[in-house]
Amino acid sequence: FVLQDFDILVVAHKVVSKAEGRIVPLSQVRPSEQATDWAAGCGKDPRLIDLALREAVRVVRMENGILITETRHGFVCANSGVDTSNVPAGYAVLLPEDPDRSAEELRKTLSNALQVQLAVVVSDTFGRPWREGLVNVAIGVAGFGPVTDYRGEPDSFGKTMRASVIASADELAGAAEIVMGKTRRVPAAIVRGFSWGANRQGSGRQLLRPASADLFR
Amino acid sequence: FVLQDFDILVVAHKVVSKAEGRIVPLSQVRPSEQATDWAAGCGKDPRLIDLALREAVRVVRMENGILITETRHGFVCANSGVDTSNVPAGYAVLLPEDPDRSAEELRKTLSNALQVQLAVVVSDTFGRPWREGLVNVAIGVAGFGPVTDYRGEPDSFGKTMRASVIASADELAGAAEIVMGKTRRVPAAIVRGFSWGANRQGSGRQLLRPASADLFR
Repeated sequence: FVLQDFDILVVAHKVVSKAEGRIVPLSQVRPSEQATDWAAGCGKDPRLIDLALREAVRVVRMENGILITETRHGFVCANSGVDTSNVPAGYAVLLPEDPDRSAEELRKTLSNALQVQLAVVVSDTFGRPWREGLVNVAIGVAGFGPVTDYRGEPDSFGKTMRASVIASADELAGAAEIVMGKTRRVPAAIVRGFSWGANRQGSGRQLLRPASADLFR
Repeated sequence: FVLQDFDILVVAHKVVSKAEGRIVPLSQVRPSEQATDWAAGCGKDPRLIDLALREAVRVVRMENGILITETRHGFVCANSGVDTSNVPAGYAVLLPEDPDRSAEELRKTLSNALQVQLAVVVSDTFGRPWREGLVNVAIGVAGFGPVTDYRGEPDSFGKTMRASVIASADELAGAAEIVMGKTRRVPAAIVRGFSWGANRQGSGRQLLRPASADLFR
């Protein structure tokens, strides 16, 4: 493939995490008592639970064999994003230390090497409240603004829109998942034709809603 | 455009709701005392609040001028999905009575008229917990299964995957939003190349997570 100006490269975090050494041999994990106790109760691997707790700043829920945490990055997700699928047996992969930094490094390296204007999204699949199934979301963003803000613009009847801020980067990450799949060994997708040329600043952190402003919780 | 076999037509609910007469002249709404009181406190139109409460089975949160409800359909969203953008001044548009039925009627009508195998998604943009911005999601589905279930399949290292159920219809709805936008008067998008030929049953209801199984709440 050939990357073009104003493409957005969406990369599954797993390949980024592996490249950054965020992969842990489970044999080296000595699980805490808390992790061991809880894992025993639900038939989980205590070493994975231990890793998830270490990546967390807060346990949101921990029951029925499901552990939902808030990670150091501010993501609320299952097992702090610690995952064993699509990694060799006996290993677990963690989220990147700083997905925005990972995205920015990838953006810089590729932009320079290929001499094109690129944006990068690092993605992961998260569960969510109220709705079944996981969706791919943007955990790291570089080179473009992750939201499209229609507030103040006229709608098609000329009325000013007041509430519409779209999390475009999350929608783009979801679209990328559709073509990457889970079993096809395709860890990246190119989004072409999304207009971001005038909007080159942004981070994944902008997609984290502060608790104080979150009436959905 | 020409629809082809196995295309998925994603339609913004607004155009469906309008076609189904789910559009209300605000002049005909006599707001309840509850709606009037609450609206006064936050400078909202009491008639819109009244419509939202009438569409709801439960108020999830109601503060800081934001009303989050569970609708009769089971959606948790702002203002029960009642919306005034992209409708004529003085009107509000409600969600379809039964978005799955709307999707199925559209699917049947278009499939018969064009003699192609189609699937249909009726979509709306919803806010969500934890994350900023709205994303488009599938509120009605016809003709294909809205989730892709990888459980039991081998990952790229041959290990059996255990947790991966992807809400593909939501990701497709999000992808469609990217091309529809909010101000372009494009109320539908065609998804081509998503493999659903062997997977022709499904509904938007499948994407509603029962409260009992929802540890994210």
